[in-house]
Amino acid sequence: MSLTPRLPRFLHGGDYNPDQWLDRPDILQKDIELMHKAHVNCVSIGIFSWALLEPEDGAYDFSWLDQVIERLWAGGIHVILATPSGARPAWMAQKYPEVLRVDERFVRHHFGGRHNHCPSSPVYREKVRAINTRLAQRYANHPAVILWHLSNEYSGDCRCPLCTQRWQDWLKSRYGDIDSLNASWWTSFWSMRYTDWKQIEPPSPIGQESNPAMQVDWRRFSTWQCKDFILWEKKAVQDVCPDIPCTANLMERFYKYDYFSLAEAIDVVSWDCYPAWHSGDDVAMAAEFAMNHDMMRSLKQQPFLLMESTPSLVNWKPVNKLKRPGMHLLSSMQALAHGSQSVMYFQWRKGRGGAEMFHGAVVDHDGRDDTRVFRDVEEVGQALEKLTPLYRKPRGKAKVCIVFDWSCWWAVDFAQAGRKDSMNYFDTVNMHYRALWEQGVSVDFQDTRECADLSGYALVVAPMLFMLPEGFAAKLRAYVEAGGHLLTTYFSGVVNETGLAYLGGAPHGLTEVLGLQATELDALYPGDSNALVLKDGRRFAIGALCEIPEVNGAVSLGDYERDFYAGVPCLTGNAYGQGMGYYLAAKVEQPGLNAVYADLVDALALPRALSDTLPEGVVATERGGVIFLQNYAGKACRVKLSQPYTNLLTGYPVSRELDLPVNGIMLLDK
Amino acid sequence: MSLTPRLPRFLHGGDYNPDQWLDRPDILQKDIELMHKAHVNCVSIGIFSWALLEPEDGAYDFSWLDQVIERLWAGGIHVILATPSGARPAWMAQKYPEVLRVDERFVRHHFGGRHNHCPSSPVYREKVRAINTRLAQRYANHPAVILWHLSNEYSGDCRCPLCTQRWQDWLKSRYGDIDSLNASWWTSFWSMRYTDWKQIEPPSPIGQESNPAMQVDWRRFSTWQCKDFILWEKKAVQDVCPDIPCTANLMERFYKYDYFSLAEAIDVVSWDCYPAWHSGDDVAMAAEFAMNHDMMRSLKQQPFLLMESTPSLVNWKPVNKLKRPGMHLLSSMQALAHGSQSVMYFQWRKGRGGAEMFHGAVVDHDGRDDTRVFRDVEEVGQALEKLTPLYRKPRGKAKVCIVFDWSCWWAVDFAQAGRKDSMNYFDTVNMHYRALWEQGVSVDFQDTRECADLSGYALVVAPMLFMLPEGFAAKLRAYVEAGGHLLTTYFSGVVNETGLAYLGGAPHGLTEVLGLQATELDALYPGDSNALVLKDGRRFAIGALCEIPEVNGAVSLGDYERDFYAGVPCLTGNAYGQGMGYYLAAKVEQPGLNAVYADLVDALALPRALSDTLPEGVVATERGGVIFLQNYAGKACRVKLSQPYTNLLTGYPVSRELDLPVNGIMLLDK
Amino acid sequence: MSLTPRLPRFLHGGDYNPDQWLDRPDILQKDIELMHKAHVNCVSIGIFSWALLEPEDGAYDFSWLDQVIERLWAGGIHVILATPSGARPAWMAQKYPEVLRVDERFVRHHFGGRHNHCPSSPVYREKVRAINTRLAQRYANHPAVILWHLSNEYSGDCRCPLCTQRWQDWLKSRYGDIDSLNASWWTSFWSMRYTDWKQIEPPSPIGQESNPAMQVDWRRFSTWQCKDFILWEKKAVQDVCPDIPCTANLMERFYKYDYFSLAEAIDVVSWDCYPAWHSGDDVAMAAEFAMNHDMMRSLKQQPFLLMESTPSLVNWKPVNKLKRPGMHLLSSMQALAHGSQSVMYFQWRKGRGGAEMFHGAVVDHDGRDDTRVFRDVEEVGQALEKLTPLYRKPRGKAKVCIVFDWSCWWAVDFAQAGRKDSMNYFDTVNMHYRALWEQGVSVDFQDTRECADLSGYALVVAPMLFMLPEGFAAKLRAYVEAGGHLLTTYFSGVVNETGLAYLGGAPHGLTEVLGLQATELDALYPGDSNALVLKDGRRFAIGALCEIPEVNGAVSLGDYERDFYAGVPCLTGNAYGQGMGYYLAAKVEQPGLNAVYADLVDALALPRALSDTLPEGVVATERGGVIFLQNYAGKACRVKLSQPYTNLLTGYPVSRELDLPVNGIMLLDK
Repeated sequence: MSLTPRLPRFLHGGDYNPDQWLDRPDILQKDIELMHKAHVNCVSIGIFSWALLEPEDGAYDFSWLDQVIERLWAGGIHVILATPSGARPAWMAQKYPEVLRVDERFVRHHFGGRHNHCPSSPVYREKVRAINTRLAQRYANHPAVILWHLSNEYSGDCRCPLCTQRWQDWLKSRYGDIDSLNASWWTSFWSMRYTDWKQIEPPSPIGQESNPAMQVDWRRFSTWQCKDFILWEKKAVQDVCPDIPCTANLMERFYKYDYFSLAEAIDVVSWDCYPAWHSGDDVAMAAEFAMNHDMMRSLKQQPFLLMESTPSLVNWKPVNKLKRPGMHLLSSMQALAHGSQSVMYFQWRKGRGGAEMFHGAVVDHDGRDDTRVFRDVEEVGQALEKLTPLYRKPRGKAKVCIVFDWSCWWAVDFAQAGRKDSMNYFDTVNMHYRALWEQGVSVDFQDTRECADLSGYALVVAPMLFMLPEGFAAKLRAYVEAGGHLLTTYFSGVVNETGLAYLGGAPHGLTEVLGLQATELDALYPGDSNALVLKDGRRFAIGALCEIPEVNGAVSLGDYERDFYAGVPCLTGNAYGQGMGYYLAAKVEQPGLNAVYADLVDALALPRALSDTLPEGVVATERGGVIFLQNYAGKACRVKLSQPYTNLLTGYPVSRELDLPVNGIMLLDK
Repeated sequence: MSLTPRLPRFLHGGDYNPDQWLDRPDILQKDIELMHKAHVNCVSIGIFSWALLEPEDGAYDFSWLDQVIERLWAGGIHVILATPSGARPAWMAQKYPEVLRVDERFVRHHFGGRHNHCPSSPVYREKVRAINTRLAQRYANHPAVILWHLSNEYSGDCRCPLCTQRWQDWLKSRYGDIDSLNASWWTSFWSMRYTDWKQIEPPSPIGQESNPAMQVDWRRFSTWQCKDFILWEKKAVQDVCPDIPCTANLMERFYKYDYFSLAEAIDVVSWDCYPAWHSGDDVAMAAEFAMNHDMMRSLKQQPFLLMESTPSLVNWKPVNKLKRPGMHLLSSMQALAHGSQSVMYFQWRKGRGGAEMFHGAVVDHDGRDDTRVFRDVEEVGQALEKLTPLYRKPRGKAKVCIVFDWSCWWAVDFAQAGRKDSMNYFDTVNMHYRALWEQGVSVDFQDTRECADLSGYALVVAPMLFMLPEGFAAKLRAYVEAGGHLLTTYFSGVVNETGLAYLGGAPHGLTEVLGLQATELDALYPGDSNALVLKDGRRFAIGALCEIPEVNGAVSLGDYERDFYAGVPCLTGNAYGQGMGYYLAAKVEQPGLNAVYADLVDALALPRALSDTLPEGVVATERGGVIFLQNYAGKACRVKLSQPYTNLLTGYPVSRELDLPVNGIMLLDK
Repeated sequence: MSLTPRLPRFLHGGDYNPDQWLDRPDILQKDIELMHKAHVNCVSIGIFSWALLEPEDGAYDFSWLDQVIERLWAGGIHVILATPSGARPAWMAQKYPEVLRVDERFVRHHFGGRHNHCPSSPVYREKVRAINTRLAQRYANHPAVILWHLSNEYSGDCRCPLCTQRWQDWLKSRYGDIDSLNASWWTSFWSMRYTDWKQIEPPSPIGQESNPAMQVDWRRFSTWQCKDFILWEKKAVQDVCPDIPCTANLMERFYKYDYFSLAEAIDVVSWDCYPAWHSGDDVAMAAEFAMNHDMMRSLKQQPFLLMESTPSLVNWKPVNKLKRPGMHLLSSMQALAHGSQSVMYFQWRKGRGGAEMFHGAVVDHDGRDDTRVFRDVEEVGQALEKLTPLYRKPRGKAKVCIVFDWSCWWAVDFAQAGRKDSMNYFDTVNMHYRALWEQGVSVDFQDTRECADLSGYALVVAPMLFMLPEGFAAKLRAYVEAGGHLLTTYFSGVVNETGLAYLGGAPHGLTEVLGLQATELDALYPGDSNALVLKDGRRFAIGALCEIPEVNGAVSLGDYERDFYAGVPCLTGNAYGQGMGYYLAAKVEQPGLNAVYADLVDALALPRALSDTLPEGVVATERGGVIFLQNYAGKACRVKLSQPYTNLLTGYPVSRELDLPVNGIMLLDK
């Protein structure tokens, strides 16, 4: 199945704002010409066009959009059409102030910015439905339109009275009766017991903010609010035309909504990808964004779209550095390697004003097409056309699954324990991911929902699975029992899904699988140090956190080197059923993780994209039989290949002593 | 006199929250068993139980508390009973929003957190009195109850209209007429003159915050408000039963209330003690907490209770490191050495939820009693039983008195002068304290109230006594005149008790005692440096502040080394009457202070706990003839003793070449 | 023309607050005696006296001020008389809350602080006019009064409904119709289009803050508001007596108002000057304040007054270090060298209370006149008397003009591009200024207003002229065409005066003058580096920003050393008409700028104050034929002079091998 049946091929294009240039038809005409030159086949339009589409309350004007779409279509360019809810017109804020958000200090905001509507507001919902419906009626049957782009980068939440009411209703439906909520939230602590749902206001720095269970639920509610709003938007367009799929552009490292849950509301996952290349360690950067790509693919376990990326630089980072030669192709191909079906940009053309007037674009203020940036974009466009056969070969299911769970992320974040600056769940998971990625091992992600399916994985990694629902613990047990390999770490299986600590010893439900029980969690100061000493004598530095396990059957694979728990096992293995349970008790730094996973990859004979030894910073990733050989080392590297390959982009055979330039990429076909 | 006549022995126990486990009678039963094992003899209960004791407005339910107390008493465990005002129930905030505080931006907070009632609110006061009265009526005569624990960690202030009215009334009663306030606050500056008491709002970042005199008075008022509220709470319980003493648990380094004043409202001082052990320099940490202990003892010049400490770690610091083996006994004994009559914990058992679910506890989530932490607690319990004879031997009056004054602290804090990051009054006093503590010299603290009594002290140290009331200056003069030794420093005697600068030259009232007058105060940048050069050539680094004295009779004991005031006296002595006035003009760093005080201790032959030379990091403190030999050096140390001692905990003789382990403690009995 | 016709000589004195001492006539009497001793000839009074002048609404009391002025005049001391609007009385805030400001979160502030009136409030304006009129009627004809000191350090802005209305009116008059505003603000971006002026609220962190064009206009409006208020104040006093000039004391590095525009409203520019001497690099500090002085002179292209400076230290910096011996004279003479007609202090005498009770003063709390500070002041007073002939010799017009434009400053600040921490416009201009100042080259400043006149300048420097109005670009073209030399840099000519990006290639309007066009702007991370390599091989480090120019005719004078643009020209020259256009594409660090400007000074034979080679840190500045030789090196320096001079302060000849002490100053007369 294609993500975009009306244009079943790699998409190449980007956000396009013709509405900023309606008084310059020459520029609009020129754009289509330049798009051809850049091998662009589709653009996203209408993302912030509400004020122009509905210049007055109830008075719509689609004439300009009609023309834009016609002209694009005439030029052979397809369209991803946005609903405009990402920013409301000024007249709406003026006439219906309730559409504006109320912040965490219970202050209603004024008109401005974007992404700041109240998701509960009946007026806002009605206005959204009205315009979405009209857009669908007018354009859904237009052959140019291939995808709905719902709103833009959904984010944030609201604490207005309407949202507060919905929060209380949501809690009611979650907990049934208030005593159950009191028990789950442990409100006997600090006399927080509620006797009326109306007492439960959203968390706030000037109200309640110190109950971790409430905080996690607030994020769940916030996810539910957003999901409900997305479904509302989607229903409006699909009521008219159910055939065109809907996407929402997600964001990297996005904390505030559970994307596994949100993704259920959309047909296609797309996302906006902005690595800070050349900011120090491009290998680490590539590892982080490889994980982001894999996460996006895993949300629906299907290919995804790269909806936004920059052809050159962004303008909103503290340091906005240019992509060095080669990096644009390299990073675009990285997305494909991990499952993307597109390379799209923000933005096609720089506007003359506004907050993003200096954000990188295919076409700069000078309108030229002979620039370095334009040529880079052209090169990617040409490559995508050559790679058309790959379009039908998605990334296959991996043999390794990493558990990443948004509720766990929030719970770790609100847990007061350990060392505040070192708990970071996302980075911790990324360290485990990186150890596998560097070895060319493909990884899927799963969360702890009931639908999570661990079957078929040779290895399941669950770093810091602090919040472990009873059911998922059972699933993990069954998985190992049946022959699976599980690796988990310190600070796992500590609380249940409402955030209450398990009483029977941690990691809850896994102590037999692992053959140990966790006791004290020590936090080290920056000046402190300890190490994991493997049984063969290799020694690896430990970061900030050291848990002291009490072993009941597990075999030590490596011990603590120092302090009063010197000699206590730090890395263990335990045979359970047909499988094995591994436990890493400390926050071992990257080199140690790399060693631990290298041993595991060998032991389990996990498939690697390329079995040859690669220079540091050169990484191989496989998709559909094609090996994407990527050089993030910041220098030219020589790779020795043990078998012959064809260069997929040129068709020529590849030298067995291959020189990859700085930021080089080579697609090896067997 | 015992602090707790119904249980006249060292208390061992901690905060206990059976109200969190009412659905688990098995756990409540188990707790008593474990308390026995841990040699616990009392627990603090009811601290945050309001929502359970009064689940609806006016509807009380004491049945669960009846049972808890009965069960404890049946198990031989005494009770410290709390009044529940530290956190109000949600229904109260909902029904009477006026009980919630208004913050410094004049915003009323919503329900949440704790310690955030309005101390003026008649509704809140009435509700507090009602429940306190009922608690007293029901439990004061119960033999298990040994002490009232009023509320919990009183803190903060409120700027609601009611508090604003009380602030204006307080000012009226302090200044009589508004012209007197205008003169004292120097309101001719920046046209701040008030003509109506109603114009004087509490200080605020969105109102008046730049008048230092107002700021100091606001803190005095805030202290008065809290004291008045404590007296209100205390009256409620003591109207019913005047025999049971009242305490309030104070906090370390607490800036916002004048504890000397607050302590007048309670019968027993207790406090919550949370050093960050093993965070770098344990000697410095021990010196700071030794000062805290001595301060608590000095508040009422009587023994105190350690009301909270952790058996292992806390969960609210940026880095929550485990206490290393030995440290729990060592730090518990340190409290005793400085005058504590108890070792109590927060908390007995970890809750399953809430902000403190990971705060260290005697009993962890796994409910085990065979843990390192439990054994450490047991060891302390046993030691306290063995030390029972020491209970009747409080720390005696010291020969050295350090002046520490809360008004001065505030005044220094609001004074804009010198180097902002280096004025810190508390740390400055602690540096002087540490020089004496390291030598085993006992110290009392006094503030500048009229009741302060300097008689009997061989040395009075008054570091940075910026705010010096006329009467206390006279007291210091008389003290030296009569043969006392006074050491004071730069930035002393600058303003009177309302904050007006003295006009006649600083340090006001002491220029003859010291034989000099202060002139300019220089502040050094981090890259700058200077030194104090003593007359024998020893050279000690100076920190951020250098005052340039003009000597009129004083003898230089050491001069500035550099800059345009090189050669100007930096440390002076002056004979005055029968005594001596010493002056230290610069912020000399710790090694210099150690040298200065070592000379003084010799010169004045001040008594030391142990005259033997101790290894660095090993400190001796004396209480009731017993020498507490404490090793904070972070390594094992050998101590050579010049006379024989008995180990008080074992009864065995102590080797004259004594090896103290890391974090070792030895109680030497002559 | 003299700035103060009634006292046509160098002014020496300072802010004086006799209203703080009305109950101490002895002190007031003593003050006059001390002023004589210090060679003080005038004082500023009444700056914050409103509460005393109008103690109740409409009830005035001038009796105390009558006496103060009489007594001063009798003592021969002249008076700079302030209007009291800098801080309103408490009764006014209580009775008319509308006079208080509303902040950027739309919260109205409470009484307190200073400089916080609403500039729109009709009540406030009426009260100001009433008291200003009465002051003028009573004192303008008094021979002691030489100047009006309007309010104090005008600053800030207000977002109350009245100010919002004026903001909308101002926009209406600027843009005419709302479509024009929409076009200029590029509101098609993010759906920000306005359809009603009432929708346009002031920028706010809880409203609109992300439109750079709006932000720049808000600052322009804010300047206009303040200017309008100044004109209102001025009219009140000059309606009564048009003869006495008006000043307002401006501030260093003041960002929020366009001082070129504001200065049009006043007769005399004066300013408050507070360098942080001895904080690390006194040469850099002197360079910054030299620029401040030159800027103040350039605002009206006429001499200015130093209205405030400290005789010793301030009290509001993080580190308040004493002026080292010599620095007071040196920094006072620096002001004169750059065009000041006065040396005035904040403050004459320290108050006993208030936020500035420890701010340096001529007379300290001890009231002494034998202090180091008093003697330093005396020395300056004597020097000013000796320098009387210089009073009639202002700084002449310079041969070099630097363009500094407030709108450009704001536009750069709100532009999201490059490297956030390195764009800083003020510091960038100061780096260029410093390179010229170190060589003794005099500099004027101009902004881009229509009245700016570039004729007569041999060199015009326009660093980072990001916002370049079309008309000013034409003026620069004509200037070069006619033989002028222009140097501009990266990030110039990017947007027009409303903030819209130019479409034809940057620097707009100057690509032919410069013989190149800018392409990409690269930002370096702190760890990155590059260098400018001049054609003779000299190599100079580049800071954070590298623009890549595309040369069309310009000659490279130096290239980039590294990265993918190695060898690309970084410094270029281009013959255009009779003149030359130079371009510096990167943020070259100070040593590189020094080298570039040294070459230019030679090439253009620009006049230098002293052609001799000076030791590093010794700087020569010329005024009226007198050379101010200033030693900021932090050590004694020997200067070799190639011709004979007279020491203007002593009349003696100067040695040809002159030893300048630390912080030494020598006035050389030919």
